[in-house]
Amino acid sequence: MVLTDIKALTFDTFGTVVDWRTSIIEDFRAFGKRKSLKVDWEAFVDEWKECYRPGMDQVRSGKWPWTTVDRIYRKKLDEMLPRYALDGLSEEEKTRLNRAWHRLAPWPDAVAGLARLKKKYIISPLSNGDVACLTNMAKHGGLPWDVILCAEIFKHYKPDPEVYRGAIRLLGLEPHQVMMVAAHNYDLKNARSHGMRTAFVARPSEYGPNQKTNLQAEEDWDVVARDFGELASALGA
Amino acid sequence: MVLTDIKALTFDTFGTVVDWRTSIIEDFRAFGKRKSLKVDWEAFVDEWKECYRPGMDQVRSGKWPWTTVDRIYRKKLDEMLPRYALDGLSEEEKTRLNRAWHRLAPWPDAVAGLARLKKKYIISPLSNGDVACLTNMAKHGGLPWDVILCAEIFKHYKPDPEVYRGAIRLLGLEPHQVMMVAAHNYDLKNARSHGMRTAFVARPSEYGPNQKTNLQAEEDWDVVARDFGELASALGA
Repeated sequence: MVLTDIKALTFDTFGTVVDWRTSIIEDFRAFGKRKSLKVDWEAFVDEWKECYRPGMDQVRSGKWPWTTVDRIYRKKLDEMLPRYALDGLSEEEKTRLNRAWHRLAPWPDAVAGLARLKKKYIISPLSNGDVACLTNMAKHGGLPWDVILCAEIFKHYKPDPEVYRGAIRLLGLEPHQVMMVAAHNYDLKNARSHGMRTAFVARPSEYGPNQKTNLQAEEDWDVVARDFGELASALGA
Repeated sequence: MVLTDIKALTFDTFGTVVDWRTSIIEDFRAFGKRKSLKVDWEAFVDEWKECYRPGMDQVRSGKWPWTTVDRIYRKKLDEMLPRYALDGLSEEEKTRLNRAWHRLAPWPDAVAGLARLKKKYIISPLSNGDVACLTNMAKHGGLPWDVILCAEIFKHYKPDPEVYRGAIRLLGLEPHQVMMVAAHNYDLKNARSHGMRTAFVARPSEYGPNQKTNLQAEEDWDVVARDFGELASALGA
């Protein structure tokens, strides 16, 4: 496997770069404390996150027109709030909660690893998150992206081919010059099917202490690393 | 004029952020010296640049399908080379010359001004250049963009409304929260027509010593600054 041709790395973001679950639970817990609310925030966040893949699949199957992730989460939030006796929140508070996805914290190794990789490669997210979400998240967490590529630009969600092929085209590169980095085997499987290089970084606590999937590499990905520091070393960065 | 609402600044890039003419002339002159070529590189570059607006207008009028700026310049380059007795260049050399647009140097005040503005605002190009060109140019010149927005994402060239409105939409903001920064009055006129805020920074030598247009602000733009440092000061950054 010739890895010397690589010019750009594209990163899955939720789970791979940022620890969304801990971030959102802490954000909501702090909000609940300020408002003296009694809610099981772990259960709340886990239920909320369940709308993500089905919402995107409604778009992918053509049942919904293009719908941003921001909108998918907001629809679900509006449906959940009355069941958690939270329907008294103001519009401003609901907007702020929904934007918790813009305030996610990077995994401890992510910023330093990206800074190393950025010196040698173009680095970009290739996420299903929206442009505004990824831009605000990068400013919030100090993610030093060179460019922001994501589903909203292509109006297709991963794993639609349009996302992977679109990123390769916009970067002006050949497929083998771009490496997809993800904590999810399905994402790498799809990236590889379009000729991209692949790197797996396990994030075994992304879904909390009882995570059952994506604990390890399920194929012979080009690089398997424990964190972004190991990935940078593997790529000579 | 309330400027406190501004969350993001979008920058015209060729001419406003980078000194394309000096950069390309120097790049080509160095190439010519290495190859012992006798060419009037100033005349060459000025003629080459002439294809830019007409090429984009062919796309805007629907006469051409979507065509990248990279392609527009390459078509013109291929047409010009024989007339300058340069048709003996290799494909690799031609590609490298055409990519001079990816290696443009920022105006002396640009990087420091952008760094100040980035602390307070989201900063992005909003250029007719391609994604790869703007990404490579940012890495080459140290432009610290938060996100890269440009014509290629919308498959429309400025001043088509899709570019300005598309940028506002992808940033997740209201028009009055986004300020267009440009050295070209036409760009600001169009940005304002979509409700954006406007800042003019004159670049009186963009087109060389005999520049006749855009020497000063032609309307009462929200900010008129001599350089990006003055712009940052005007915006409290």
